[in-house]
Amino acid sequence: MYKLITTEKSAKRGELHTPHGVIQTPVFMNVGTVAAIKGAVSTEDLENIGTLVQLSNTYHLHVRPGDELIKKMGGLHKFMSWDKPILTDSGGFQVFSLAGLRKIKEEGVYFNSHIDGRKIFMGPEESMQIQSNLASTIAMAFDECPPSVADRSYIQPSVDRTTRWLARCKAEMKRLNELPDTINKNQMLFGINQGGVFEDIRIEHAKAISDMDLDGYAIGGLAVGETHEEMYRIIEATVPYLPKEKPTYLMGVGTPANILEAVERGVDFFDCVYPSRNGRHGHVYTNHGKLNLFNAQYETDTEPIEEGCGCPVCKRYSRAYIRHLLKAKEMLGMRFCVLHNLYFYNNMMKEIREAIEEHRFSEYKRNKLSGFENKN
Amino acid sequence: MYKLITTEKSAKRGELHTPHGVIQTPVFMNVGTVAAIKGAVSTEDLENIGTLVQLSNTYHLHVRPGDELIKKMGGLHKFMSWDKPILTDSGGFQVFSLAGLRKIKEEGVYFNSHIDGRKIFMGPEESMQIQSNLASTIAMAFDECPPSVADRSYIQPSVDRTTRWLARCKAEMKRLNELPDTINKNQMLFGINQGGVFEDIRIEHAKAISDMDLDGYAIGGLAVGETHEEMYRIIEATVPYLPKEKPTYLMGVGTPANILEAVERGVDFFDCVYPSRNGRHGHVYTNHGKLNLFNAQYETDTEPIEEGCGCPVCKRYSRAYIRHLLKAKEMLGMRFCVLHNLYFYNNMMKEIREAIEEHRFSEYKRNKLSGFENKN
Repeated sequence: MYKLITTEKSAKRGELHTPHGVIQTPVFMNVGTVAAIKGAVSTEDLENIGTLVQLSNTYHLHVRPGDELIKKMGGLHKFMSWDKPILTDSGGFQVFSLAGLRKIKEEGVYFNSHIDGRKIFMGPEESMQIQSNLASTIAMAFDECPPSVADRSYIQPSVDRTTRWLARCKAEMKRLNELPDTINKNQMLFGINQGGVFEDIRIEHAKAISDMDLDGYAIGGLAVGETHEEMYRIIEATVPYLPKEKPTYLMGVGTPANILEAVERGVDFFDCVYPSRNGRHGHVYTNHGKLNLFNAQYETDTEPIEEGCGCPVCKRYSRAYIRHLLKAKEMLGMRFCVLHNLYFYNNMMKEIREAIEEHRFSEYKRNKLSGFENKN
Repeated sequence: MYKLITTEKSAKRGELHTPHGVIQTPVFMNVGTVAAIKGAVSTEDLENIGTLVQLSNTYHLHVRPGDELIKKMGGLHKFMSWDKPILTDSGGFQVFSLAGLRKIKEEGVYFNSHIDGRKIFMGPEESMQIQSNLASTIAMAFDECPPSVADRSYIQPSVDRTTRWLARCKAEMKRLNELPDTINKNQMLFGINQGGVFEDIRIEHAKAISDMDLDGYAIGGLAVGETHEEMYRIIEATVPYLPKEKPTYLMGVGTPANILEAVERGVDFFDCVYPSRNGRHGHVYTNHGKLNLFNAQYETDTEPIEEGCGCPVCKRYSRAYIRHLLKAKEMLGMRFCVLHNLYFYNNMMKEIREAIEEHRFSEYKRNKLSGFENKN
């Protein structure tokens, strides 16, 4: 159940009540692809850096260790020792981006595992079954995520099929939630809006899926090659046709600046690999833009990554020490940068929530963006 | 200043008072080669798993980031944010095992850096200067560590040179400790006993260096190829000729069983890469022997690594989850195994100290070894 606490123009400050507790929105989900955040970050660490929701990848977990195994272990929460909400993606995006040779048919997608090449079939029902085995808090609908360069003649039939798939997802999720041995019998389901960069297709699709009364709605297929301006235009065009009394999730986005722009346009949920991926490469976020800690200028810099930052790394370690660890290829250097970056994102979302509550989000956003100096 | 609290036969329970606090012995030093424990383990983690002393490698830090840089940063303690004692090795062992083509002369050793091949010279004075720059709590004397297969005709002149080098180390350390810009003006110096597997050479050398009134004495050149029985024989023969009122350090040793045997023979200090190296390969220590978490039998094992273990990993995560992380090559899996293993070693040393205090070390050792079933 989503509760809209307050708004500032289109920006929403909400709460999603789930079987695993309340999610305060806008929120950034920390991406733990294979039931772990890359960079040696544990669930205990996530508790310490203010993570409210984790995202795990259905396709990865299906191929290893297997969703059946995770079900046997009592579900993803128990498996990784995390009692707050988890959202799982549908597996669709990974199938389309990672897996080998694939055939899309009405029933679903045939493809080869990226691990061992074995043939796998995944359709809406299979995706729901896997996510039900994982027992995540929120399951995502199985959709096709078409290439960003696809033209209308490809996008329209793809979106139509995604709508038919959504109906099958909903029916299957209902059936699974009623089975006696289902772990999470209140698993929520979010639908996904598609339509490439074509506003009219996006809007028609948004209307169609809004009628289906799901627990939330995502905007998919963005941040896959189009410009930021195109992305903002699509969000601005689409969000008004998604139910305001449900959470909105912008999938796979993005930079801190992207998030600020999307919050302003009414988005509640975000996820992105940037903070962990950038951290593993020694790129760290600050309120004055991203720093590359490999740079020689930090060699004897006794300052923390960011003065005043409340993360466990900035409280104790210097840029010079972290740079040394990165140069020496010590895992600890990556861990430090990932911890800092995830904290930076989580903390920015906290600041965003407070700003909307106090109806000063526009000002907050303007100050934050000008601080970044186009470096975040 | 070393204080002998009590003994049980040859086993010693002591305290070494240092400028960075008291070290309770027997103690296991956690090896942080380049000012970091491999496996993404931070100084904060070490505080949480009961680490009393860290060991850092002089040679590694000399080539990267450089001891001059660390001096500029206020010394190793400040650089890595660790206020308890640190022991640095002399660099000698690494020069002999890692560096390229080398020439040993009376003045020291000429060799090539393993990083960039550049020519480096290191003699007793250079080793002391580097360690003084690092500002460790305890510096080790610069010695030659001869190959374990070397015969008497090689060992005797090598040991004689090591004795002459020790006198130069002592003089240089005294000079450095009196310089105005030295960070740790009370840096301690341990001498190193050598002599291969020849008891008479070991004993003569032990007598010679005991006369030099150093802060502690190490037994070097063991665990480099000889059998465990040979190693125990050499320790047993040598320790009686080292001063009892000074700490004894068995360098680079070893397995939990090795440590129990050496404590019984009067050793105070240990260091070894086994717990971290084994951890990175998914091999974890328990009181019933080492487990290989890659084994299929742990696939759905909901138990912690060891029931009742007080480490931060066993309190929360299952063997099945850690195995999954290791299989998926997630750094987090390695971090968990290293944390557990270091805790296991630190905790065993704590148990050893308590057992000697209560004069039940023999019984403790017997029980512990029989639990290991030759698997530790």
